[in-house]
Amino acid sequence: MHHFFVQSTDINDGIVIIRGDDVTHITRSLRLDIDDEISVSDGEGQKYLTKLIEFSKDFVKAKIIKEFEVQAEPRVKVTLVQGLPKGKKMDMIVQKCTEIGMEDIIPIDTKRTIVNLNEKKAKQRQERWQKIVEEAAKQSKRGKIPSVRELSDLNQVITDFDRYDLVLVPWEDEESRGLKETLSSNLDAQKIMIIIGPEGGFSSKEVEQLKTAGAKSVTLGPRILRTETAGIATLSMVLYELGDLG
Amino acid sequence: MHHFFVQSTDINDGIVIIRGDDVTHITRSLRLDIDDEISVSDGEGQKYLTKLIEFSKDFVKAKIIKEFEVQAEPRVKVTLVQGLPKGKKMDMIVQKCTEIGMEDIIPIDTKRTIVNLNEKKAKQRQERWQKIVEEAAKQSKRGKIPSVRELSDLNQVITDFDRYDLVLVPWEDEESRGLKETLSSNLDAQKIMIIIGPEGGFSSKEVEQLKTAGAKSVTLGPRILRTETAGIATLSMVLYELGDLG
Repeated sequence: MHHFFVQSTDINDGIVIIRGDDVTHITRSLRLDIDDEISVSDGEGQKYLTKLIEFSKDFVKAKIIKEFEVQAEPRVKVTLVQGLPKGKKMDMIVQKCTEIGMEDIIPIDTKRTIVNLNEKKAKQRQERWQKIVEEAAKQSKRGKIPSVRELSDLNQVITDFDRYDLVLVPWEDEESRGLKETLSSNLDAQKIMIIIGPEGGFSSKEVEQLKTAGAKSVTLGPRILRTETAGIATLSMVLYELGDLG
Repeated sequence: MHHFFVQSTDINDGIVIIRGDDVTHITRSLRLDIDDEISVSDGEGQKYLTKLIEFSKDFVKAKIIKEFEVQAEPRVKVTLVQGLPKGKKMDMIVQKCTEIGMEDIIPIDTKRTIVNLNEKKAKQRQERWQKIVEEAAKQSKRGKIPSVRELSDLNQVITDFDRYDLVLVPWEDEESRGLKETLSSNLDAQKIMIIIGPEGGFSSKEVEQLKTAGAKSVTLGPRILRTETAGIATLSMVLYELGDLG
């Protein structure tokens, strides 16, 4: 069955209104008809089985037949903080991490970040990544659309630490503490932040700053993962250990 | 320190000979000099600390100072069998899975595989993927270069099942058995095969065939992962649970 996201304000009295590009998609590409069934999410965790009841140029109306219990969202909410990587790597990171189950993502500028985005460009990228996230959320049948936050930096991110039960910094120079033992001793964590450095990694000073603020540096094992692999792999492991993945 | 792979036949009596593109890389790009130290792997698990002792147009000679105990290889050997995906997705899969720690990868043609490679093209792709794997092995500091096997199919792959302790088939229609419970009851597995379908997934008939031959179908959780995400995520989880990742 085809799945669509709508604004929660477009769901009223058992009727759902679908707008925008999805209208052409439903009528032209999928050639759906009156009485055909689609599933609809409000992007905040509610999902409905609906039946198409009215077509117009600007919208499609559907009637709610049943409310699903949404199970496609992990119990643990993971925020990925990603040192801005070069090229199109961020496109891949936001797409894959949406499928795997991240809650939201914050791109950050760090000492060794090479990419330089002015305010306008940063805004454009944020919109582009949000669009990729929406597509991926639809395809992976998530009940919720993860948010792409605006470009930030470590100082800003640190001010948010107290809203998390656990802040993890995978770091190649960390030799003693593993991710696994850290997760095992934080089995009741509900909100987790994962902070990944850019291509050149974090400087020792940055890691010190993060640790002083309460983050735990962890090793991911003996192999060095690229920046765009580290987030995907760490998110997979965190949601495997504490969430609903696998 | 810079790291290079050489043929094991190029290591004799404490002397290592480095040939090919690496010669220009060492002399021109990195501008290394006599007495500079590099690390060298034989691609089969041995790693050495060496000192450069001789430069020529065609080779660089280095003297072994110390043999490292290689710890960059997981205890569990994982073979990824990947339904051939479209476009450049396979490039990304082989690169990421090399960093994460796969042992080897077998691309396969399946019922729903769209890509059609003739023998010549399949050979070219195999060489190209092997090259990507080598680069990734070097960058992630692995002790071993994973192999890209030639294009195969399910019938062929099934004949290899008896060489594995556990064969996993992540499948979106599997509703009861999770990856986690399956791994938990196979903690002593040494050789594991992960079989991932192409974009359209496996047909029910193919999954039946695999299960009859001894494979275990598992769910990865409530979200649907794309083919290029499924292998990366499953490998991460398997090496997290049974190997040295995290």
